[in-house]
Amino acid sequence: MRQNGDMPHTLWRPSLALALYRNRQAPASRFVQLATIRIDGLPTVRTLAFRGFLNETHRLMFAIDNRGANAKEIARTPWAAACWYFPVTHEQFRVGGVATIAGEEERDPIRLEARRECWLAMPESARLVFAWPNPGEPRERRVPFPAHLARPDVPLPNFCLMVLDPQEVDHLELNGDPQNRWHYRSDSLGRWSAVEVNP
Amino acid sequence: MRQNGDMPHTLWRPSLALALYRNRQAPASRFVQLATIRIDGLPTVRTLAFRGFLNETHRLMFAIDNRGANAKEIARTPWAAACWYFPVTHEQFRVGGVATIAGEEERDPIRLEARRECWLAMPESARLVFAWPNPGEPRERRVPFPAHLARPDVPLPNFCLMVLDPQEVDHLELNGDPQNRWHYRSDSLGRWSAVEVNP
Repeated sequence: MRQNGDMPHTLWRPSLALALYRNRQAPASRFVQLATIRIDGLPTVRTLAFRGFLNETHRLMFAIDNRGANAKEIARTPWAAACWYFPVTHEQFRVGGVATIAGEEERDPIRLEARRECWLAMPESARLVFAWPNPGEPRERRVPFPAHLARPDVPLPNFCLMVLDPQEVDHLELNGDPQNRWHYRSDSLGRWSAVEVNP
Repeated sequence: MRQNGDMPHTLWRPSLALALYRNRQAPASRFVQLATIRIDGLPTVRTLAFRGFLNETHRLMFAIDNRGANAKEIARTPWAAACWYFPVTHEQFRVGGVATIAGEEERDPIRLEARRECWLAMPESARLVFAWPNPGEPRERRVPFPAHLARPDVPLPNFCLMVLDPQEVDHLELNGDPQNRWHYRSDSLGRWSAVEVNP
């Protein structure tokens, strides 16, 4: 067990990776709830699939559609908060940070390549969604949804990689004695500090 | 299958009740992610146990601690958004609405009684949390956490019932053909309307 005072300050990253591994039998543990601020200023939250860490960093990747509300919300208020609940190990991770979006006109070659790799790593069913009619608009039953992509290896223009750069992480272990909770925070220079807090 | 145009406008309530029933084997399906606006204006999200509907209404109940950040956030910005992901039936419900808090000084006898019933319905382990030291403050290892309550039948003063009065509901069925999604909305008179939208 980790003791107060001698805890590595960036331990949240391996702790999260470990939780993802330990909960891999529960398919829903790949899903995260992402909270953003709507255009009207109210909070909202939806489920997204976690697409892994950006290269070897601690940045989190998600696939989003630039026609959807979440892309517009992040463009306006870039702070987003993600929450995992892991049902096997009874842990919660809350991650708050700055979200940025890499679309097909992304200039950073590393992020552009990460966008392409994310597309290729997704199952066909997840890629097809980006070829569907505009999400959230009234449904026209007569409009058929495409069942395959002409060029499955080429990301569709509306496909975006959202990168969440964590600034704060709250890790709660419900199976502790009685529970354990740590709060991690990054300063403006990217240096992490950690404190054990009451659950 | 529900057809566009002849759908009852308040169908989200039985749909949610049905999803809770169908997913009862997945204990995590009782958990909801609740998004609020922090005091500093940023969005945040955490996992809460759903404590059922308030009497026969469509209002959602949650147990919260008035010493915690979420109680302070709701007092300041009463709009909250809840998100369920149901792993067995592959459904998502997103509920946005106005949250109010009933503490021990609640004047409405119905809400005060609902608070008491919620307390009594919780397992002992969930009640004990309200006797722990202030959540989120630095942990003192020397301070023992109480292991039982002197009066388990009496709600502790910091125990609050949070009631979320839904104004908008978004229901997504991932198992549709290919997916189904409905958006429900309440007007200022509490009349619900519904529209089927693109997933």
